[in-house]
Amino acid sequence: MRNRKNLFHALNSPYLAENGSFTVQSLPTTPPAGSQGSNKDYKRKLNKIVRELQVLQPVLYASGTRAVLMIFQAMDAAGKDSTIRAVMTGINPAGCKVYSFKTPSERELAHDFLWRTYQCMPEKGRIGIFNRSYYEEVLVVRVHPEMLDSQNLALRPGLKTLWRERYQSICDMERHLARNGTVILKFWLNVSQEEQKRRFMRRLHKKEKHWKWSPADLEEREYWPDYMEAYEQMIRATSKPWAPWYTIPADNKPFMHYSVAKIVKATLQSLGLEYPKPDAGTHRHLADARKQLQGD
Amino acid sequence: MRNRKNLFHALNSPYLAENGSFTVQSLPTTPPAGSQGSNKDYKRKLNKIVRELQVLQPVLYASGTRAVLMIFQAMDAAGKDSTIRAVMTGINPAGCKVYSFKTPSERELAHDFLWRTYQCMPEKGRIGIFNRSYYEEVLVVRVHPEMLDSQNLALRPGLKTLWRERYQSICDMERHLARNGTVILKFWLNVSQEEQKRRFMRRLHKKEKHWKWSPADLEEREYWPDYMEAYEQMIRATSKPWAPWYTIPADNKPFMHYSVAKIVKATLQSLGLEYPKPDAGTHRHLADARKQLQGD
Repeated sequence: MRNRKNLFHALNSPYLAENGSFTVQSLPTTPPAGSQGSNKDYKRKLNKIVRELQVLQPVLYASGTRAVLMIFQAMDAAGKDSTIRAVMTGINPAGCKVYSFKTPSERELAHDFLWRTYQCMPEKGRIGIFNRSYYEEVLVVRVHPEMLDSQNLALRPGLKTLWRERYQSICDMERHLARNGTVILKFWLNVSQEEQKRRFMRRLHKKEKHWKWSPADLEEREYWPDYMEAYEQMIRATSKPWAPWYTIPADNKPFMHYSVAKIVKATLQSLGLEYPKPDAGTHRHLADARKQLQGD
Repeated sequence: MRNRKNLFHALNSPYLAENGSFTVQSLPTTPPAGSQGSNKDYKRKLNKIVRELQVLQPVLYASGTRAVLMIFQAMDAAGKDSTIRAVMTGINPAGCKVYSFKTPSERELAHDFLWRTYQCMPEKGRIGIFNRSYYEEVLVVRVHPEMLDSQNLALRPGLKTLWRERYQSICDMERHLARNGTVILKFWLNVSQEEQKRRFMRRLHKKEKHWKWSPADLEEREYWPDYMEAYEQMIRATSKPWAPWYTIPADNKPFMHYSVAKIVKATLQSLGLEYPKPDAGTHRHLADARKQLQGD
C-alpha cells in the first residue's frame, strides 16, 4: 500500500541518514572542517534556539493534533543525557516526558519487544523523549544474541530472519504512528572510540561522575566494531522520510547540542502549528465573560 | 517481506473466514440444517470441552512461551458476554484476563487508535480476552464517521484511505504479535436481526436485564446494513492465517458457545505445549530437597 503525501517528511540536513545506502565509516564524529564556530558560538546559538523552543512548544500543546517522539541512541558517554538536558531544559515539563529504558523487567520480557515502549508513546500535544528505546532490541541484543534466551520466544527463526522481522515490526509501528499524527525524530550520537576513552578517563577521575560508572561500560567497548555494524544495519533498514535518523557528530558536545536543537526547532516550525482559532460562539462567550466579570 | 512457515496457522473450520472473498450475506446465523444436536447435547459437549480447557490452560501458563488473544465482536445482544462466561468459566483467572472496551476516554483519544488496547495485550503464558477491541475503530467509527472528529487527527485523509490504513495498521500489529508468540483468535458472533429483536424484547420484559438496556441499542439497530457492510470489509481485510476470523452462527446460544469452545480447545491442542522439562541439575535439586525434608 502507498503512503500518503501529507505525511510528515524529514527536513534536509547534512546529518539526515539516507535509507539503504548508509555507511557508518563515511560519517564524521567531529564538526565539519570549514565550520567557524567556537564552543562559545555554539553555546550562544543553542541558547537562542532553546528560547525559540519555549515559544513553539505551547503551540504544539494547545493545538493538540501532533505528538513529537524523539529517540536517542548512542554508545556510552556519547552524550545522550547531556543533549537531552541541554536542548530540553526550559521546556515546560507538563508537555514533555523523558523515558530512560534500561534492562527490561521480567514482566516486560514476557511481552513482545515493542510493548514496554508503546505504553510510553507521547499523546497529541506532547513531546516524548526516549533515552534508549525499542532500538536496543536490534543493538545490544544483536551484539549479544544470547540475550534472546531470556525472551521466551516460541518461534525463534534464524538470526538473519529475526533481525529483518524486528526492523519490519519497527517500521510498521512507526508508519502507523506517523499516519496518526506523531512526528518521529531519531538521533544517533556518533562518538569516536578515542573520544569515548577520554570521557571514560574523566569519569574515573572525577568523584561526582563515579556513580555513573559500571564495569559493563568497559566490556561493551570491546564490541565496538559489532556495535558499528548493528547501527549501520539498523539505520539502513529504519531511516524513513516519516521517521528519519539523524547521525550527529558527538566528539564536540556544544556542536552536538546545537545540531540536535537546530533540527528539533526546524521540525517544529515546519509543522505550521497554530493556536486553535476561537469560532463565533467562543468570541461571544469571551465577550459575555468580560462583561460579567466587570459587573462583579 | 515473506512470513515464516512456523507461524501459527488457523485450524480448518466451517466457520473460518476466507480472506478476500468473504461475504456476510452467505453466512448462516443458525446451526447447520443437518446437525443432530439438541440444546442439551450442545451443553453436554460444552461442559466436556470446558473440563479439557482446565487441563490445557495450566500447560500454557507453565510453558510460558505463547500468549493467547481472543477477540469478540458482534452486534448488541449477539452473546459476547454469555459466550465468554460459558467458555472461560472454570479457567484459573490468574492466567486469564477479560477486558471490555467501551467509549474511549479523553486520554485514550489523545493517543493513536491502537494504544489503549496494546497495553492490555496478554503476556506469554496468559489468555487475554477482548470484549470489543481496536476493531471498533473500523466498525462503530466506520458506521458513524463523525466520531473521527473527537480523535484530533492532524492528517485526515479521505475515508476510503483512512479505513484502508487502519486495516493495514491492524494487520501489521497482529503479524508482529503472531511472530512474537501470540496466538490470535477472532470471533464474530453472527446474530440475525430477528433474533436480536427477540432478545431485546426479553431484556425489556425482564427486570434483572434492565440494567443492560440503553436507548442507543435501539438506535444502532437502524444502522444494521451499514454494520454488516463494515463487518464484511473488516473480515475481508484482516482475516489472516496467523490471525483468523471465525464467524459463528449466534441465533442458538448453546450451539454458539459449543462452537467457540471447540475452536479454542483445538487451537490450544494444536500448539503442542508441554510442561517445561526439568534438566539434570533440576533433578538433582529435587532429590536433594526430598532428602532434606525427610531428615527435617
